[in-house]
Amino acid sequence: MKKVLIANRGEIAVRIIRACKELGIETVAVYSEADAEALHVKLADEAYCIGPKLSKDSYLSFPAVLGVAQKTGVDGIHPGYGFLAENAAFAEACENAGIKFIGPSSDAIKIMGIKDVARSTMEEAGVPLVPGTGIVPDIETGKQWAATIGYPVIIKATAGGGGKGIRVARTEEDLVKGIEITQKEAAAAFGNPGVYLEKFIEYFRHCEIQVLADSFGNVVHLGERDCTVQRRMQKLVEEAPSPALSAERRAEMGAAAVKAAQACNYEGAGTIEFIYDYQADKFYFMEMNTRIQVEHPVTELITGVDLVQQQLKIAAGEKLPFTQADIKINGWAIECRINAENAYKNFMPSAGKVTNYIAPGGNGVRIDSAVYPGYTIPPYYDSMVAKLIVHADTREEAIAKMNRALSEFFIEGVHTTIPFHEALMNNEVFISGDFNTKFLEENDILNVKGNETIVAK
Amino acid sequence: MKKVLIANRGEIAVRIIRACKELGIETVAVYSEADAEALHVKLADEAYCIGPKLSKDSYLSFPAVLGVAQKTGVDGIHPGYGFLAENAAFAEACENAGIKFIGPSSDAIKIMGIKDVARSTMEEAGVPLVPGTGIVPDIETGKQWAATIGYPVIIKATAGGGGKGIRVARTEEDLVKGIEITQKEAAAAFGNPGVYLEKFIEYFRHCEIQVLADSFGNVVHLGERDCTVQRRMQKLVEEAPSPALSAERRAEMGAAAVKAAQACNYEGAGTIEFIYDYQADKFYFMEMNTRIQVEHPVTELITGVDLVQQQLKIAAGEKLPFTQADIKINGWAIECRINAENAYKNFMPSAGKVTNYIAPGGNGVRIDSAVYPGYTIPPYYDSMVAKLIVHADTREEAIAKMNRALSEFFIEGVHTTIPFHEALMNNEVFISGDFNTKFLEENDILNVKGNETIVAK
Repeated sequence: MKKVLIANRGEIAVRIIRACKELGIETVAVYSEADAEALHVKLADEAYCIGPKLSKDSYLSFPAVLGVAQKTGVDGIHPGYGFLAENAAFAEACENAGIKFIGPSSDAIKIMGIKDVARSTMEEAGVPLVPGTGIVPDIETGKQWAATIGYPVIIKATAGGGGKGIRVARTEEDLVKGIEITQKEAAAAFGNPGVYLEKFIEYFRHCEIQVLADSFGNVVHLGERDCTVQRRMQKLVEEAPSPALSAERRAEMGAAAVKAAQACNYEGAGTIEFIYDYQADKFYFMEMNTRIQVEHPVTELITGVDLVQQQLKIAAGEKLPFTQADIKINGWAIECRINAENAYKNFMPSAGKVTNYIAPGGNGVRIDSAVYPGYTIPPYYDSMVAKLIVHADTREEAIAKMNRALSEFFIEGVHTTIPFHEALMNNEVFISGDFNTKFLEENDILNVKGNETIVAK
Repeated sequence: MKKVLIANRGEIAVRIIRACKELGIETVAVYSEADAEALHVKLADEAYCIGPKLSKDSYLSFPAVLGVAQKTGVDGIHPGYGFLAENAAFAEACENAGIKFIGPSSDAIKIMGIKDVARSTMEEAGVPLVPGTGIVPDIETGKQWAATIGYPVIIKATAGGGGKGIRVARTEEDLVKGIEITQKEAAAAFGNPGVYLEKFIEYFRHCEIQVLADSFGNVVHLGERDCTVQRRMQKLVEEAPSPALSAERRAEMGAAAVKAAQACNYEGAGTIEFIYDYQADKFYFMEMNTRIQVEHPVTELITGVDLVQQQLKIAAGEKLPFTQADIKINGWAIECRINAENAYKNFMPSAGKVTNYIAPGGNGVRIDSAVYPGYTIPPYYDSMVAKLIVHADTREEAIAKMNRALSEFFIEGVHTTIPFHEALMNNEVFISGDFNTKFLEENDILNVKGNETIVAK
């Protein structure tokens, strides 16, 4: 692997360029017309404009990306996250063009990308799934099944999807009504009245396991990340380890993740996301992300393994340089996603010129960003402008360090979520470590409702 | 320890403020009139101007510093490095004012600050000293002693000092002439003709051991730093571990450093500097620095110990939270001192306005700096503007990472030593690890002599 094209933008493009440079690999950047001044363009050895601002005409265009790859003679394409990262057709196009797609095979992407194929593959591999039933044949059997699973349950139309044909039942009374109504609705909407039941995990934590798999069948997991702090399903803060998992459950989850990767002949870096039902102390497969993730640095900091370097080495046909026994978890890491958004105004995006930018530094502080002083954040892409990641011996020390780092992070010209993170790091519930994915829904972290005249930082 | 005054400026003041914030300690900054816009002033909880630009009237003024300390009711004063850090009289003034000097006792500073007291204390403690003699009674005895020590030797006037009354003898012929001339010169210059001999270690590496000592008599060392890359006795690059020390010699040097600290009842963070004669594989005491050092971050990165936090905890009367056996060395760290100097023009200082500043980031990169975009570097103080420190598994990987980080460090408006460091990281001799303190004297790293038209970055 001598030369790599990075089919992405923003901080992840910069991240990948850094890993390439450290391994002596030449880098080719691509960019849209809106990104001519982007940092990844400045840092790569070569950079080519591949189209207008709209992603579909630039970052998502197979011919544009593959055209530059062929012109520049790269050995591989790193897709980062988002854009083409989990596009099986693109992976296949790379395979056909004889260019290494730096990630798993298109087959593995397909297996994990189709929900019911992923579920059945996981079931076969022995990875825990949320308990569910077959099609309910009659009300009495439905009652028995629901009692076995335990309330609350979800009634799901087998032909439904996208959130439609779903109903929660908390009691047997709910269930009886729910099955009848859902069957009727499903018959009318999908032409198929079949419904099945699934356990409804209302309060859970989002835990996920990082895996690395080489092309020789070796799979190693690197512990969990806890991404329970979410707003509308978007992760805002991630930490590793999880404050909620016992050593036993952690080991089981890691073993399940390894099985999941093996079941799809996985290659590269991947993440198996789990629903962790902390009340029952049980976990269930949610989905697999077949790419590097935004929150990968927290795992790097507690394991000392450079995940993007490993992606490149695996793609070059190298064996994993460690076994499971070599992986040691050291200390605690937290990542805050700094978005160009006004947290006081419903997280409204805030693109524009960054008139001043002073990043924190010092011991145990890592910044992954593509912003620099004078840079204009374009409004067309993701609003994340920086990841602030800290590493310390304990969770308490990591929170103190994050507080310190946030207090010296100055971004002027646009609104950012820094004030939100500052409030979060001082929130008693967050500090306690005892919360679930409804935390931000149920807690007015910024006290927006209680403040009439807030001046955003 | 609830509130601390930082009697310093620049990156070390910022470094100390960070450690205080992480420990929940309030901070008081002091600054000269030239430093009103300095970062440490912006980051501290309180900041007071203590005088005009000249250090003697501000940062070195006992009444100015102690006046603010008393007014603000701080529990301790952290002197950083330079300025008042090794001033025994200041430490004593703090002791008398009932304010904790965050460092060793004034007695320990005195012992280590006076060269012959330090030497005799070390000799008593069994710390190796450069082999030497008493006053030479006659030429024949001198010849015998020189033969025992081994050539080359230095002839030193006992009443000399400051580089005067010193002569190197490489042969017996040199020695005979040298003793006669030096005796005559010394008699004329100092009124005392006495001369003694010392082994002349011409080619050596600068190795130093970091120690931490608490007020309960516990002393732990944290391995060595290698500071052999020097220009005119000024360190430019430091690394840890040393590429030259064997495990056995490292252990011996560490044990000697602990003895040295114990011999002066040391408290806090200190460094014992050694001359390492790599040809003979022997080391000798050079001096002890009774303060935190510029290059302390390389030790922090390979040990995971926050030295400035430890200074604060020790000063608060806490016991060391680890023993010698707990200290593990992990990977390799390198620090480049980025100075505002034109390396192509004899490292001429280059103060002025920083018009653009983009610092490197990402995995394994640490920045300790007090510079920000738009900041004007005043010409009155040290020219160091940033420390770039990297951490990786091996020396080779650390060099690759430093290369990568340097390539993305943009400082505009002033000259910096970044081009020098870039050349050094690609220099074969540096990469080999096999060099001594004359390395920069004997190697034209930047190829300044071979280039007629150099455009500085």
